[in-house]
This record gives sequence, C-alpha cells and structure tokens, in this order.
Amino acid sequence: MDWGAGNQRPADLTHLDTPAVVVDLAVVERNIQRVQSLCDKAGIKNRPHIKTHKSVELAKLQLKYGAAGITCQKLGEAEIMAAAGIDDILISYNVLGAVKHARLADLHRRISLTVCCDNTVVAEHLSEAVSATGKRLNVLVECDTGRHRCGVLSPQAAVSLAIEIDRLPGLHFSGLLLYPPDGAWREATEFVTETRQLCGHAGLDIEIVSTGGTPNLAFAGQFSETEFRSGTSIFNDRQMVSIDAAEPRDCALFVHATVISHPEAGRIMLDSGSKTLTSDLAGFDDYGLLVDYPEARLMRFAEEHGFVDVSQCRSVPKIGEIVRILPNHVCPVVNLFDQINLVDGSGKGRKLQIDARGRVN
Amino acid sequence: MDWGAGNQRPADLTHLDTPAVVVDLAVVERNIQRVQSLCDKAGIKNRPHIKTHKSVELAKLQLKYGAAGITCQKLGEAEIMAAAGIDDILISYNVLGAVKHARLADLHRRISLTVCCDNTVVAEHLSEAVSATGKRLNVLVECDTGRHRCGVLSPQAAVSLAIEIDRLPGLHFSGLLLYPPDGAWREATEFVTETRQLCGHAGLDIEIVSTGGTPNLAFAGQFSETEFRSGTSIFNDRQMVSIDAAEPRDCALFVHATVISHPEAGRIMLDSGSKTLTSDLAGFDDYGLLVDYPEARLMRFAEEHGFVDVSQCRSVPKIGEIVRILPNHVCPVVNLFDQINLVDGSGKGRKLQIDARGRVN
Repeated sequence: MDWGAGNQRPADLTHLDTPAVVVDLAVVERNIQRVQSLCDKAGIKNRPHIKTHKSVELAKLQLKYGAAGITCQKLGEAEIMAAAGIDDILISYNVLGAVKHARLADLHRRISLTVCCDNTVVAEHLSEAVSATGKRLNVLVECDTGRHRCGVLSPQAAVSLAIEIDRLPGLHFSGLLLYPPDGAWREATEFVTETRQLCGHAGLDIEIVSTGGTPNLAFAGQFSETEFRSGTSIFNDRQMVSIDAAEPRDCALFVHATVISHPEAGRIMLDSGSKTLTSDLAGFDDYGLLVDYPEARLMRFAEEHGFVDVSQCRSVPKIGEIVRILPNHVCPVVNLFDQINLVDGSGKGRKLQIDARGRVN
Repeated sequence: MDWGAGNQRPADLTHLDTPAVVVDLAVVERNIQRVQSLCDKAGIKNRPHIKTHKSVELAKLQLKYGAAGITCQKLGEAEIMAAAGIDDILISYNVLGAVKHARLADLHRRISLTVCCDNTVVAEHLSEAVSATGKRLNVLVECDTGRHRCGVLSPQAAVSLAIEIDRLPGLHFSGLLLYPPDGAWREATEFVTETRQLCGHAGLDIEIVSTGGTPNLAFAGQFSETEFRSGTSIFNDRQMVSIDAAEPRDCALFVHATVISHPEAGRIMLDSGSKTLTSDLAGFDDYGLLVDYPEARLMRFAEEHGFVDVSQCRSVPKIGEIVRILPNHVCPVVNLFDQINLVDGSGKGRKLQIDARGRVN
C-alpha cells in the first residue's frame, strides 16, 4: 500500500497535544464531492449519514455540495442537526421508547422528518408519538436484503407492514429503507421490484427507496434506489482501503499519538489506547495502522496505552516522536472526541466541534 | 452465576431514555468502603484510580470514606479533578509532549502532584516543564514486574533512572510505581526489595511504593506497597466477576437497552451497540451479559445496534422491553457518556456528570 501520495504528513503539527484526531479538510472536500458526483451521475439523491462525523459544520458542507438532506442514526443526533437549522432529516432507525415520544413529536413539528421501522410495535409507537402534531410522519419500511441487522425479511412482510403503517393515524408510508451487504445490488433490486408490485396491488406508492453503505457507492443507482446514504466516505479508514472502497489518498482522518516509552527491544508504547482508538478490530488482527511505519503492529491496547511491536521495523520511532495512525473503523473513534482538529494543506489547524458526540439516545 | 441477590432490577426505571447507564449508589458506597477497609487493614493508603468513573462527585465520595488522594491516568483528568478542589493527585503515566509543559507546571503549582516515568526522555521533559515553578515535582519510577506495559525492567534500571531523576533540576525521586499482573505480589516484592537496597547504596530513599489493580486488592499489603490504586472496584464488571475479583452483588453499573426489533426467530436487536458498550471483549467471546436473560448472547455490534442470539432463551424479551446489560469492561463504557444515572434503592434517580469524559490528553 502506497501511503506516499495525497497523504503527506502535515508540515508542522507539533503544536497539537496528543492524542489528537487530525482531519485534512482538502481530502474531506474531495471525498464529499466524489460522493455527490456519484449520486448525480446515478440520478439519485445524496443523503449522507452524519453518524461518522457528527458535526454540524461538516453536515452543512455536505449540503452545500449538493446533498438533498442528511441521515442520522439516533433521534439525539437529529435533534442537534435540526437545532442548527438542518431541516430535511432521515432517521434510519427504529425509534422506540415512551420517553422519546415528546422529543420525536417536537422534532417532527419543526422539520421535514422521515423515520424507518421494521415492526408494528415501533409503528404504533410512532403513531402515538406524533398524534398530537396534526402532521403526518413519513415512514420507510426497513428491509433486510441480506445484512441481517434490522429489517423485514420478505417483500410480503414489507407490504404487510406498509399497509399497517398507512392505516395508523399520523403516519404516511413513504417507501423502503435498505442497507444491503457490500455489492449486493441484485438482491436489493429484486426485493424492491417485488415489494413495489405488491404495494401497487395494495394501492400504496413507493416514493422513496433509500440505500446505503460506503462500500456500495461503486454501485450507486443499481439498487433501484432514489437516494443514497453513505457515512464513512467523508473520512474513510483502514477498513475502506482494505476492501477497495477507498484509496490511501482518500483517507482524511488520522490519530496523532506520541511515543511515550520504549520499555524493551522491539516494543514501543503510545499515549493512545482503547479510549482513543476504540477496541473495534473491524476484521483486522491489530488496532490501527501506523502509516509512516508500516511494519509496526499496534498489537494491544490498555485504556490509555497502545502496545506497538516494532521488531520488524527498519526504523523505530523515538520516545517523544508523534506518529500517525489510520483507524480501523473511523466512526466510533470520532465519537470519543468533543473536538477534533481540521487542518489545511499548510498544516494550519483549527478545532472542529463534534456536536452530536455521544448522542446514543 | 446467581444474579438474584443484591442486584434487584430497580423498581421503576421506565422513565429513563435508553440506552442509559444506570448506577446503584448503594452498591457504589459499599464498594468504596470495601476498598478502604482492605487498605486500612493492610496499613496502606488508598489512592483510588478515577479513570473508571471520571466523576468529581465520586472522587470526593472516595475521599470522604478515607482515600488519601486520587490517581489519574492523564493530565487532562487531573486538571478536572484539581479544578474541583482535589489537591493530592498521582498521575500514573508518562506525561510527555511540549504542549503539556505549561499545563503540567500550572497543575503542579496548585496541588500536591506526583507523576511517574520510566525513561530519561520523559524525566528531562518533566524537569523542563516544572523548572519555572520553583517547586520540586515528585516522580515515581514506573517498574515492570511482569505486566509488560510501561516500566523499567530491572531493579538496576530503576535505580539508574532514580538517580537521573534526582539529579534533574526541579524533580524529586519519591519512589516506585507498580502495576503487577493479577496476584503477582511475590515478583513485585522482590523487585521492590532489591531496588530499595540499590537505592540505599545510592543514598536515595523510597518513600512511596504505589501498586494497583482491582484484581490485586485481595493481596493488598503484600506488594511491599505504601499505597494502592484501584479503579474498576467502584463499579465492577463482568470481567471482575469472572476472575472472582467481585461478586454479582458488587456490580453497581448496568447499561439499560431497549429491544427495538425481533427480525427473525432466535434473534432480537437492541438499541445499544459499539457506541454504547464499546467493542472491548475483555477476553469474552460476546459483548456483555444480559443479566435477566442469562442464556441470551450479545454476539455482535453495529455502532447503534446490538445483535442478540435468543435461540437458547426460555423466555425472550419483547420489542419495547428494557433489558439490563453488565458490561465486559466498565471503564471505556463510562467514558462514552457525558452523564449517567445514579439511582438509590427505591429506583429514584438523578444525573451524574462524567466530568473528565474524553480527557485523553
């Protein structure tokens, strides 16, 4: 893997207190434009998932480049984005819980809100939640086309739930939400086509088909979708590079860590552990990539310590040196930080607030 | 494992918005008293590690019950605790980085501060950092007695570094910091004894021997230590129970999650994933224990989804039901939340701020 091109080590970041998350704004802008361009070419709407960056500023940048709206995973994220003036939001999640009713109704009153659901308990709760608003809530039926997370399992189940949703006071059945396995557009299209037929028989329109996943961007337009949700694409990470969903030059976010100890030959210790980079292996057998020392292996974490095997390294970073780490999975890393650092090509930086950090409710 | 005694499901927590971290204050107080009592009996100081709870209120509760001071892992944690009036703090970490100099000096001026180090680069930086304060900084030499994290490897290396520290302007060599493997008090005591002899020859006193680790509490007083640092003991977790460092009734913290989907037979989905419970397996092969459904297995996470295999369950929690999860490793879970919920026996609750959340710097 060639990390040379497009991922120059920023000129001077020694003013940063490590551990620090450092994001190259030029790469971010290029990534946003790439996604917009893929959606434009496919003739579909771009509805980026903000769960990756959780930042109002970056969400607004995505909208500026042409996004039709945004996607949030949790009600709390949507509240933060709506409070900042973003008024077209899809929550791609079963919103459930009596405590959430008032919050959902309040949000629904203020913006153009769409949610999804995959069962009648959630549908009934949604109906109850928005009943007092006098405004119909758009609801997508979440469909499982192979990922086996949430979602109804068959077109028959999808149309049954669609009918139920449309029957419930205050709800409007708007279409389908998919999150297909990487590259599985055929199964998705078959599911959508059959559901569309069945819905037609039932007198229901499918206005929206929302699909997603950064690895699926290469197939944008082939899922029978009307809109695309991608999250990780704004930063990318080691996982996206490993499955060819991104190139090294597309990686916008690195964790900067300081070597704080070299306790024995072949091993150094970093000031970054699971409270900085998370324990998310994302399919790898180590915890992140030291891009400037590719033979090094981040083999273990304590909460605030990274254990790095440098026995195979041609050169070993010295105590005090700051190294760059490409996270395995970028989304949960960003969620650990109240602020991250945005830099431009000159290495000049400023703080970016992670506005919706920790909004799991 | 009997989860019946001492871990009653709180009477009514349906007012809580899930996912929620819920802490039983009575169990916390019992856990704090137990640690204090173990240290008192061993004739050593109790210096609880606040990295687990990161809360000023809980740190002050530990001090109220007799703790001699607190331990922090990062400078940023210590700054928060000092700002709240806590004035005796050990940072059990190699504090390194030019940007940290001014912060360290400022903290050192205000409180009774002790830090540790395991190499001369860090020692020189510490000296430089505090040089302008006109006040000597207490420094412990971190010793590796078998855990292979940070620490010098031999008593000879320890005394060499001790001499170097004492020679450096502004630093005072105060003793040793240990973090022995679970139960490994013999190796620790041998290391301390030999280092003490060598230090004696060099004219250096070892005033403090700080040891730690909740699993080592059972051996408090046997490490030749003068003080003990334990973190996890305030809440305990699945890992502590599994190694007999705690009993089920000692577990004070649970994550409450809602069942949001039952997409297929044998599988339910929770509204809590890796952004709530972290991906820290801590040696288990699943991501947490549903204490009220012990046959359920939390087998996989998405960021906001928990995948639970309920195929072996006698009864299956219904969509909308709130279940309690005992985290594998409690410390990184608390670090995801700005606030958690403190409840008393009646189930009445209030919010507790996680003041030093995310302070990795």
